[in-house]
Amino acid sequence: MNINLTQQIHDKAIAMNVNDLINLAIGYPCENINEILREETIKAIKNNSTTYCQTEGIPELREIITKNRVRFNSKDNIIITAGASEAIFLVISNLINKGDEVIIISPTYFIFPSCVKFNGGKTILVPLEVKENKFNLSLANIEKKITDKTKLIIFNSPHNPTGFVPDKQIVYRLAQIVDKYNLILLSDEIYKDYIYEGEFQSPEEFTDRVIVVDGISKSFLATGLRIGWIITRKNIIKNILPLHQLILFCSPSPFQYGVYDMIKQNVDQFLKKHIETYREKKDKLLEILGSIPELEIIEPQGTFYAFVKLKININSIRFSEELLLKKHVVVVPGLDYGKEWNNYFRLAFREPLDKIEEGCIRIKDFIEQNYR
Amino acid sequence: MNINLTQQIHDKAIAMNVNDLINLAIGYPCENINEILREETIKAIKNNSTTYCQTEGIPELREIITKNRVRFNSKDNIIITAGASEAIFLVISNLINKGDEVIIISPTYFIFPSCVKFNGGKTILVPLEVKENKFNLSLANIEKKITDKTKLIIFNSPHNPTGFVPDKQIVYRLAQIVDKYNLILLSDEIYKDYIYEGEFQSPEEFTDRVIVVDGISKSFLATGLRIGWIITRKNIIKNILPLHQLILFCSPSPFQYGVYDMIKQNVDQFLKKHIETYREKKDKLLEILGSIPELEIIEPQGTFYAFVKLKININSIRFSEELLLKKHVVVVPGLDYGKEWNNYFRLAFREPLDKIEEGCIRIKDFIEQNYR
Repeated sequence: MNINLTQQIHDKAIAMNVNDLINLAIGYPCENINEILREETIKAIKNNSTTYCQTEGIPELREIITKNRVRFNSKDNIIITAGASEAIFLVISNLINKGDEVIIISPTYFIFPSCVKFNGGKTILVPLEVKENKFNLSLANIEKKITDKTKLIIFNSPHNPTGFVPDKQIVYRLAQIVDKYNLILLSDEIYKDYIYEGEFQSPEEFTDRVIVVDGISKSFLATGLRIGWIITRKNIIKNILPLHQLILFCSPSPFQYGVYDMIKQNVDQFLKKHIETYREKKDKLLEILGSIPELEIIEPQGTFYAFVKLKININSIRFSEELLLKKHVVVVPGLDYGKEWNNYFRLAFREPLDKIEEGCIRIKDFIEQNYR
Repeated sequence: MNINLTQQIHDKAIAMNVNDLINLAIGYPCENINEILREETIKAIKNNSTTYCQTEGIPELREIITKNRVRFNSKDNIIITAGASEAIFLVISNLINKGDEVIIISPTYFIFPSCVKFNGGKTILVPLEVKENKFNLSLANIEKKITDKTKLIIFNSPHNPTGFVPDKQIVYRLAQIVDKYNLILLSDEIYKDYIYEGEFQSPEEFTDRVIVVDGISKSFLATGLRIGWIITRKNIIKNILPLHQLILFCSPSPFQYGVYDMIKQNVDQFLKKHIETYREKKDKLLEILGSIPELEIIEPQGTFYAFVKLKININSIRFSEELLLKKHVVVVPGLDYGKEWNNYFRLAFREPLDKIEEGCIRIKDFIEQNYR
């Protein structure tokens, strides 16, 4: 197993130690943690709520997260994990044994195939298609890849790194395929609040053969707290719990109290306002990068990423390294998301608006000065 | 994999919902979190130090933990994990493949053999001997069990559940065996500050073929924060890091800042005072239980556990259940530590002194009323 390229380029950037660095590689928003979450967490720690809690998580948090869900609406349908990362690890470790096949939509966050590999499984990539300046998920392509060894399909909407958000019809048909072949669908919904176009649709509405993974990291600007969860059928929860106990014993308890107290209050207004600022950032990025003929940029429907195609003859590693060296702008080479994406790079629009503007202008200058 | 008996008996006790319950089963001290740690953690959260940090942990914490160690004294010798639990999982997952053998001292905390099993390895138990009212570790017995499949010896001093603390000579000879057969020694040192007799000796002094696992949970009364670490040779750290990245991405960052700020200040006085109160608790427990002829109790040299032998004809499960039902006292059945310990039970002296006294008196009454 190797440390991923995102980490490597990030480390390189830090090592350069320049004061005008613009980091468009980092996978979390730049804003400070949600204020309510911060204050409620501090309260929990002041109250000495700092010991082990139940392995599955504190009951009040499990209840408040599940109570309004369409299907998995009991506190026995959830485990609170140490971030979505642990959740993904637990799900894949629980389901995948040596020789099992897992269908993963490509480009893909490196964690998914790494977890499959760790468990002796085989990743079968199904690339998104690019049609009429849109990403598209072909269900026929997925169905073609299903064999009697296929156990799991991994689905991430809004999708990192493309920002693709499949519509209700596609999610419905995907759920039908999962049912038809008795598969399980791992639905990573960590970016569900970052939607700019259309609506987020969880496959939970259409099948009970789904395991939802989610958490607070991206929506509430709290990546360091390591609070995530797994939501699914009770029997699967029961099967997964012992491994969570083995690895974590329980997730950090003070943060569980903080998250519960935050959710009890109204977070909709916060989210609405927050996402609006991200819409502005996305529009600024599109405005500048859209004017560069050497790039092909598909407007992200969700997330805070854009996955941009290089129409010039340079691989993504060299592009990223030269951009960092010459312009002090960090992006993630597409290679990190699969070999076939080596002429792409990922941009995160997570910095303040003026930095995004400056970063995009530098990318424009870089291309004009070197590749035109 | 099953949820362990400790958890089960604990759940049963909670479900009874009686208001005079005395829980001598719980594996952490009853006192509130170390005050400095609490205040420094709150400061970190107020400062919005709540995002992802380096996968291996924040540099200042890694440096301060390692700087005075005898052997592994660089920040590249450590990974900050989500508690000692994750640390143990990472070490065993990294070293053990299908068919590998792991020697574990018995009685053993269930996590060790569970981790070995999860990774396809085989646990070879070497029981402690009981001689002249003392526990003893026979190195000859360990050496006899070594085969060409043996990869790892797991060593936990002070020892849960017996409170056994092997002396320097034994640790030295154990390290020699590890070197002689090119094994690795996993040294779980989580109870190192809980010493009542003799001195704690880490095998790190005698061999570089050792991986130390430790954390803040027990010493600083902070089990819910999930901060632990792995300390070992740099090449092993490098090998383990990708799996930590896969599972956790990083350990909870605000707590890392809090722990660093605590360690910077002097914690020796706190620890000295804290351990003295535990010595009193241990003495009280021995005073009462030592007077019951139906029990054989070996004085713990460390930890906050006593592993007590039942000299009456009853297995540990029935003993624990009846004690809970009739006297509302919770203890852990010895079976949880291995089949050969089914005539033992574990007591944690973690409650305030008066509760320990009351709990022990109830155990005495229970035995007198039912088994004399």
